[in-house]
Formats: sequence, structure tokens, C-alpha cells
Amino acid sequence: MTVHWLTFFFTSLLVSAMAEASHCSTKGLPLVRNISELPQDNYGRGGLSHVTVAGSFMHGMKEVEVWLQTFAPRSGTPIHRHSCEEVFVVLKGSGTLYLASSSYEMHPGKPQEFRIYSNSTFHIPVNDAHQVWNTNEHEDLQVLAVISRPPAKVFIYEDWFMPHTAARLKFPYYWDEHCFEAPPKDEL
Amino acid sequence: MTVHWLTFFFTSLLVSAMAEASHCSTKGLPLVRNISELPQDNYGRGGLSHVTVAGSFMHGMKEVEVWLQTFAPRSGTPIHRHSCEEVFVVLKGSGTLYLASSSYEMHPGKPQEFRIYSNSTFHIPVNDAHQVWNTNEHEDLQVLAVISRPPAKVFIYEDWFMPHTAARLKFPYYWDEHCFEAPPKDEL
Repeated sequence: MTVHWLTFFFTSLLVSAMAEASHCSTKGLPLVRNISELPQDNYGRGGLSHVTVAGSFMHGMKEVEVWLQTFAPRSGTPIHRHSCEEVFVVLKGSGTLYLASSSYEMHPGKPQEFRIYSNSTFHIPVNDAHQVWNTNEHEDLQVLAVISRPPAKVFIYEDWFMPHTAARLKFPYYWDEHCFEAPPKDEL
Repeated sequence: MTVHWLTFFFTSLLVSAMAEASHCSTKGLPLVRNISELPQDNYGRGGLSHVTVAGSFMHGMKEVEVWLQTFAPRSGTPIHRHSCEEVFVVLKGSGTLYLASSSYEMHPGKPQEFRIYSNSTFHIPVNDAHQVWNTNEHEDLQVLAVISRPPAKVFIYEDWFMPHTAARLKFPYYWDEHCFEAPPKDEL
């Protein structure tokens, strides 16, 4: 009986490791993928559901990456910036885009507010600090987000008046962590 | 009476020219745009409805471009290739992706066929000849398409056995034509 349980335990471990590895492999993936069967997780962020539809680490993309993200009411992205283009298409719900246009200030400063809504689109100028937030109490906000220059290198701000130089680089980003292989350490 | 009609005629021309120009201007556009209010056309291609959601010529994008396309039954893209990445997200309907993987052959050759369906995603390897077709008799096929390196430089094949070298460069592409400004002619 003990042996059976051990076999079951190690087989489960193995299957789980293989499943994990297969999410990160660019080989052997079907060309056409059902989005509802792709890995989906909150990656430790409350209210988030993230799916990498086409990704650098997961699918071998080199120039664009596409995400499907759902934000529960009162959740959203951190305040952040990145040195790449980003386009949003709002599929469901509504919310607010907070955008601090790049300037010569030391910090993002008070952002402009824009209402975003189902079937709207907007893009974020390179390096502008921004935050997308579900400000609708009653409905999830779902977006498709497209970024250039994957994988994402994201600088996170704790608030709009944190100096640009103090923003914290988050790399690999939340959903890239489990597929990221650090380059071999330079021993010299 | 004649004067009124002439006034009306020329005012219409002026308004139409201004509307046309505003589609091509990256200035003065609202940051958040309602996709259903963006210019939509078939650009001379039967069965197509194309909307540039975020474009190089129309919105000043430099690294990614996003299109919303609807194909009526028995319509689709030409057989074509481009030297950029492309990701599709199928929003509605179903159809067929024809894909001839790049090889050392002189022509694309007989393509592989893949069924595509609502909520599926796929991407086209750089330079692979491909065609997306609505093979469903009863329903429109609607996709979001994302390309890198805009504006699109597209090589079109008349059939799968046309030599790569004979494929015709279509630039500016159909929906970019009305916003494209040719560079000044070099008189030397």
C-alpha cells in the first residue's frame, strides 16, 4: 500500500513537472491553440487572471507578445512603465486608464484619467508611466494587451510621486518567472 | 438655387477631405478610441471588413499594429508573406489557415491546413507564405491580427506554386494607401 502511494506521489510530481515544462517549451506546441485551454493564473496578484496568448518564453515570439487579462472590480495593474509600445483592446467591462505622460520631471506626477470601455482601444506611449484599473464595481474588466520587444521589462512605482530612478525593475515579469532560465553565472 | 447646390457640393467635398485627412493624422486623435467608430472599409476586396485599430500611418505606431478583420463566408486574405511576426486571435466564426512553411524550395508549395475557430490563437512564422480563409458557409470569421514592424510590407502570390521571386510587393498595403505619403522624388 505504501509503495502504491509512493508511486502515485512520484508519478504526480513527474506529471506536474512535465506539464510545467511543456508550458515553457516552444517545441511540440500546436500551431493553433485554444485560448481557454492555455495556462491561466493570478501570479500572486489579487483580482487578476492572466493568460499569455502568444509569448516570448512560452511560444518563441521575438517581436510581439499578446496577453488576455481580466481584472476583478477594484483591481488592476501596478503603476509601471516599460520601454516598448503597448496596445490595449477592451473586450468586456469598463475602467480607468491613469497615464502620466513622460516629461522632464523627476517622477510621473499626477496622472491624467481616461475612461476605458468595452470595444475601446488605446495605446501607451513608450516609457510613459501608467496604470489600468477596473473602477466598475459590478463587472470584470477584460483586455487584450499587445506589447512589442518581448519579454517585458517592467519598472514598477509604488506611487505617482516616486522618482523614476527609484522605480523597481521586475524582470522576469510575473508570468514569465516560471519559464525564465537565468543565464549561466559568469565565474570570472 | 444653383448657388445653394454648389455651396452644398463644395462644403461636402471639404468636409470629406477633412475627414479623410483626420484619419491619417496622428495628432488630435483621442487617446481612447471607440473601435466601432473607426474607419471601416473593404478596400476593394470582396467579403472583407477591415479596421485599423492601432496603426503606423493612422496612429503613429512604430513597433506593433493591430487590425480587426471580418471575412464573409468564402472570403479571406490573399496568399502572402511578410518579413514580420503576426499573431491572430479568432473572435468569431471558424475557417482554415493555409500555411506553407519556409523551406529551400523555389515556391511555397502545397500548404498545410489548420482549422481555426472562435477563441483560438495562432501565429505565422516570419516569411512563411499563408492564407486565412473563411471556409464556414454560414458565419462570418472575425479576427484580431497583430503585426510587428509596421507598416506592412506584403508579398502576394497568385497561387501556391508561384516562385517566391515572382510574388508581387504590395506597398503601401490596401488600408495604408490613403494615408501613405510617397517620399519626395529624387531628381538627381
